[in-house]
Amino acid sequence: MKTEWLDAVAWDDKGLVPAIAQEVLTGKVLMVAWMNREALMETAATGRAVYFSRSRGKLWRKGEESGHVQRVKDIRLDCDGDVVLLKVTQEGGIACHTGREACFFNRLEDGEWKVVEPVLKDPESIYR
Amino acid sequence: MKTEWLDAVAWDDKGLVPAIAQEVLTGKVLMVAWMNREALMETAATGRAVYFSRSRGKLWRKGEESGHVQRVKDIRLDCDGDVVLLKVTQEGGIACHTGREACFFNRLEDGEWKVVEPVLKDPESIYR
Repeated sequence: MKTEWLDAVAWDDKGLVPAIAQEVLTGKVLMVAWMNREALMETAATGRAVYFSRSRGKLWRKGEESGHVQRVKDIRLDCDGDVVLLKVTQEGGIACHTGREACFFNRLEDGEWKVVEPVLKDPESIYR
Repeated sequence: MKTEWLDAVAWDDKGLVPAIAQEVLTGKVLMVAWMNREALMETAATGRAVYFSRSRGKLWRKGEESGHVQRVKDIRLDCDGDVVLLKVTQEGGIACHTGREACFFNRLEDGEWKVVEPVLKDPESIYR
């Protein structure tokens, strides 16, 4: 298996790179998480988004608890090699742990952050 | 002027936060750069994207050399407060310093990064 492409990524001093997940059909930016080498390799191999959880210090196969798996249609790397962009289909239509479609639900309005996107599912019913 | 909203941002240990610029009309993810408190404040105040250049160690008013200014239509913060999303109109249709529309022009295909987006303008003619 070819792995040279992983060396083109500008991993940071912790061996991580930020990854943006974007819904392929609507273009909506769903979330940003981190990947280590193993996470990106598994993502490419399986077509399912795998991140590295900095808080838990281990691989995080998106959807492993929630069922909200991301099917990866396209993997991009930016000009500097230090950001990954995944175009995905979000199963269940919910990417955020708050039960919203996307994590970017705080909108700056008149000098305050306003929550502008609805909770689609109670997080307590997502994470049993 | 209200500045409490800036305290809601989870600035990292260098006082920075990553910011994604997304073209508001097409949904295309154009680039990711970094902001410090001053950059985000000026972006909100002026409606023009301002970043913090880590390499130059100073504010970077996007387009100051290239003319490729980003007009900011919407400023979002994610659930953890540690990523900013700007929805912008990209003047000149070029966000990347390589002369491409967007920075995410490397696509993973069969274990290799392939350049899949054209250079729209020679960088040497952009940065005189």
